[in-house]
Amino acid sequence: MRVITTVSELKSAIKAEKAQHKTIGFVPTMGYLHEGHRALLKRARQENQMVVLSVFVNPIQFGPNEDFEAYPRDFEQDQKTASEEGVDIIFHPSVSEMYPHELSVGMTVNKRTDVLCGESRPGHFDGVATVLTKLFHLVQPDRAYFGKKDAQQVAVVDGLVNDFNFPLQIVPVDTVREQDGLAKSSRNVYLTEKERLEAPILYKSLLMAVEMIKSGEVNPERIIQEITDKIHTETSGQIDYVSILAYPNLEKIDVVEGNYIIALAVKFSKARLIDNVIIVEE
Amino acid sequence: MRVITTVSELKSAIKAEKAQHKTIGFVPTMGYLHEGHRALLKRARQENQMVVLSVFVNPIQFGPNEDFEAYPRDFEQDQKTASEEGVDIIFHPSVSEMYPHELSVGMTVNKRTDVLCGESRPGHFDGVATVLTKLFHLVQPDRAYFGKKDAQQVAVVDGLVNDFNFPLQIVPVDTVREQDGLAKSSRNVYLTEKERLEAPILYKSLLMAVEMIKSGEVNPERIIQEITDKIHTETSGQIDYVSILAYPNLEKIDVVEGNYIIALAVKFSKARLIDNVIIVEE
Repeated sequence: MRVITTVSELKSAIKAEKAQHKTIGFVPTMGYLHEGHRALLKRARQENQMVVLSVFVNPIQFGPNEDFEAYPRDFEQDQKTASEEGVDIIFHPSVSEMYPHELSVGMTVNKRTDVLCGESRPGHFDGVATVLTKLFHLVQPDRAYFGKKDAQQVAVVDGLVNDFNFPLQIVPVDTVREQDGLAKSSRNVYLTEKERLEAPILYKSLLMAVEMIKSGEVNPERIIQEITDKIHTETSGQIDYVSILAYPNLEKIDVVEGNYIIALAVKFSKARLIDNVIIVEE
Repeated sequence: MRVITTVSELKSAIKAEKAQHKTIGFVPTMGYLHEGHRALLKRARQENQMVVLSVFVNPIQFGPNEDFEAYPRDFEQDQKTASEEGVDIIFHPSVSEMYPHELSVGMTVNKRTDVLCGESRPGHFDGVATVLTKLFHLVQPDRAYFGKKDAQQVAVVDGLVNDFNFPLQIVPVDTVREQDGLAKSSRNVYLTEKERLEAPILYKSLLMAVEMIKSGEVNPERIIQEITDKIHTETSGQIDYVSILAYPNLEKIDVVEGNYIIALAVKFSKARLIDNVIIVEE
């Protein structure tokens, strides 16, 4: 496994691999790797001859009041995880390597962003689209892997890749959960002991909603109310949003049917957690 | 030579060529090919194993009052020219093939655009950046060729490619001129007989400016005044701008020195012509 920190070294390495016709699987991350990332790496390892992992906490996708500085980092541990999962190259650039000067061209994500997390994080997906465009050009992957936990990110990246004809395939991978159902996340370490015990309620409330729909409920407002009540009653978290939207276009729906996503975000004292279930008709 | 009109067919063709490790030279155009385009195609032919030409009048780079509908088209003649210049693939998509639905992500060029043509064509370079991003992803060239006549376009594309780490090289090619000095352009056909006789004054005024600078003049305002006077006196055209700027960042300068561009745009009755000279210190 090779650790690369500069753009020029990465370019040379990718060029050499491409010359050997190797298929490249790419897992872009902000590091502090957990089981969710391992699932992406395993899938990339299965489906490609070469696996590239990027570890880069991207400043331009954080808002002014967000946790860029506080975002957890442990590159030593990340290298160990990557090695265990058979990664060939870790790309771990500095901020100045990725953004040596002010960008002359800006990207603005105009759709699928005014709902869910996008609503409370203006500009967030612009930063995501920008860094992924750069990374896709540098790594030139055949496939790029994203967790369904960030369902809105998958929807936005899907739009980006299709709109601009990137020559690669986006592969969404199922959310990995703790035994009690809590979705794995780098931010879970910020939960207090009490909050950690409450946090599985988020997923339980989503499963409850799925049961309601299976039992015939089609009114999104009533389902959202039930989820909201459960989280208010059984946790100390503050609800940021609970939404039921068409999937993958993330448009509002009046009747729950077809393909849809039930998604939520809840703020605990030092961590904002998100989770979702996506129901796609076979 | 193969004519391809769909994105899916182009993807398959490029994939097949890439599998054979062929280097790809790409010349993106809006068609109605003239000697200037031939120079780009010849250069691409010399430097690459395969040459792809795109012929696509890109609606999103035309403003509401610009000449999208009236822009000259002659695809039959373009095919003949392309064949003579040894083109392997012409990509000639419809508007709906390139833009099947509203884009979910927008690109905005924020630098190098508030001068020269950008000043009078708001949004123009956003459309250029968008279509080139799509075409670069579809064609996956090793080198892309652009005429220096559109010097601002070269500067903007250079920024786009560097900012977003596109894995390709931009090759600027010298402006091709008529015997009397007029820069070749698709729009020259719109000149009246009288205007066509006057039009070489544009280039002559640029050469005069270069002589003034060689003789010791360093004040951009005085040089611009001389160019303006000459064009007013000797042509019926209306000056859109005459500018002297640092090159390639296109920033304003108080003293003419180092690398710079002298550029102008002049409106005739039915054609707006541009020209420039770029002086780069050896």
